[in-house]
Amino acid sequence: MTIRIGILGYGNLGKGVEYAIAQNDDMSLKAVFTRRDPSTVKIVTENVPVYPVSEALDHASEIDVLIICGGSANDLPVQTPEFAKIFNVVDSFDTHARIPEHFTNVDKAAKESGKVGIISIGWDPGLFSLMRMYGNAVLPDGKDYTFWGKGVSQGHSDAIRRVKGVKNAKQYTIPVDSALEAVRSGANPELTTRQKHTRECFVVAEEGADLAQIENDIKTMPNYFADYDTTVHFITEEELMRDHSGIPHGGFVIRTGSTGEDNKNNHVIEFSLKLDSNPEFTSSVLVAFARAAYRLNSEGISGCKTIFDIAPAYLCKQSPEELRAHML
Amino acid sequence: MTIRIGILGYGNLGKGVEYAIAQNDDMSLKAVFTRRDPSTVKIVTENVPVYPVSEALDHASEIDVLIICGGSANDLPVQTPEFAKIFNVVDSFDTHARIPEHFTNVDKAAKESGKVGIISIGWDPGLFSLMRMYGNAVLPDGKDYTFWGKGVSQGHSDAIRRVKGVKNAKQYTIPVDSALEAVRSGANPELTTRQKHTRECFVVAEEGADLAQIENDIKTMPNYFADYDTTVHFITEEELMRDHSGIPHGGFVIRTGSTGEDNKNNHVIEFSLKLDSNPEFTSSVLVAFARAAYRLNSEGISGCKTIFDIAPAYLCKQSPEELRAHML
Repeated sequence: MTIRIGILGYGNLGKGVEYAIAQNDDMSLKAVFTRRDPSTVKIVTENVPVYPVSEALDHASEIDVLIICGGSANDLPVQTPEFAKIFNVVDSFDTHARIPEHFTNVDKAAKESGKVGIISIGWDPGLFSLMRMYGNAVLPDGKDYTFWGKGVSQGHSDAIRRVKGVKNAKQYTIPVDSALEAVRSGANPELTTRQKHTRECFVVAEEGADLAQIENDIKTMPNYFADYDTTVHFITEEELMRDHSGIPHGGFVIRTGSTGEDNKNNHVIEFSLKLDSNPEFTSSVLVAFARAAYRLNSEGISGCKTIFDIAPAYLCKQSPEELRAHML
Repeated sequence: MTIRIGILGYGNLGKGVEYAIAQNDDMSLKAVFTRRDPSTVKIVTENVPVYPVSEALDHASEIDVLIICGGSANDLPVQTPEFAKIFNVVDSFDTHARIPEHFTNVDKAAKESGKVGIISIGWDPGLFSLMRMYGNAVLPDGKDYTFWGKGVSQGHSDAIRRVKGVKNAKQYTIPVDSALEAVRSGANPELTTRQKHTRECFVVAEEGADLAQIENDIKTMPNYFADYDTTVHFITEEELMRDHSGIPHGGFVIRTGSTGEDNKNNHVIEFSLKLDSNPEFTSSVLVAFARAAYRLNSEGISGCKTIFDIAPAYLCKQSPEELRAHML
């Protein structure tokens, strides 16, 4: 008996979930649901059906947990509460400011259906949130720092593509080494946006475009680039494809704090990720939490949960005895 | 209403717990229990009584959680099950191989009394265990590495002090930088004991002692030093006190793994600690889990728990709503 997983949405994230399931022998992929024409969606796993999302309800009894792989802007606010009425669900909702509202909606649906809905899973929100929380719990007298990168920011790449004269672009967010070192030293620096990260842009211009104008439009763009030191490189479409087709990302969560007599002892807790593929890593986290969703619901628990609410042992295939003997 | 904490054992760890409680305004120290003559134990907090451990039972109703600050070799295997019959307890039992047995004993006592006993809390076992577990859950196709240091190993310092002609000593465990770099690169190296850590010893010799003999005795000591590259420095007692009186420690837990098509994407999860005071940091972790013990027991839960069994939100003073709004 394996935990039967359904995937809703087969983009980078959904495909990553498919690969991650194959790495966990207590799980199996039962179906993929898509808003596209199912005949156009070719998945990797053999003998697994692709259904239109409209038919998901018909397959409720075949699926233990549905992993919802839509976008946070428009898909998940609707899909997660909707499907929590029928399935145990897991999503990667990452609009930090709207998490409380999303939680309320998913909680209501999941409590009514008796299912579990786990939201905002991935690495930020997700593992990074967890590290911030453990750091605050352990060192209450301290300071938090989060740095992102080096990695591709999809939102910033999209913003560049909307600039007049730009054909294609990739943007990297890069943490500033000297800022990281200052934090690690325990100096508790106050860092401005500009001091924490730089932005590096690789831009393919349309033929005859005004490069100086493009560079200026990018560097002065409010919210996205104006507050950062930004570098713009013009390259060819071929170079973009050859050197910048990956989706790496990562970052650092650091908690510094002090303890003891006159707070004289300083401590640094650091967590970092270096990821070749942002969506595949996020997918791997989603799959571990799908295991938790299944187990929690098997124990009769329902409602919305976040990474803060789930005892770590629920994520692991191993029994509590094995975990204590080999990992503690 | 604050969570009322008792401390059993007032050494470095107990004193660290006392300072940590002062950093958490939802907690208060109610009593210290000692095996020494209470009149000889001066604690930092004003107006808190020090009692002989034999009177602990008389104060059961005044204390929500008892933090047991004894040693793992002789104290905790007896004390934790014994006091779990009366109190919610937290300990830092760190003899990895004997955790399953300790768990069984504490679980039996705590289930009978209806109390919660949280064992093996600190950083290893403790936060490091947690990181190994999350890493394994998220990247099942991967490899674990744990490095310790730079820091003082009490056991190794004690072993040196038992060498003939040695008056005093401090031993530092140091992770090898090139090994750390090889792990971070994703090369999945197989590392021998010697390749992972070096050992640096600062030794005060007795007058007229045979220094060459001491150095040889240390470097060839089985289990402790023979498998490592060890450096021995002879210094004066004054230098030892001046330069090596601290108890710093730390280390690294790294999980490397791969995902996706042909496992072509590599990921590195790294967690590290850099601690000025090993006992004070351990104490800070104990205090956060004392909060969890109190809350779990308030919900009617009893029995033995480890760091794997406790949802992260139990550790934090903040409400679930606050955590979701500000830390997720």
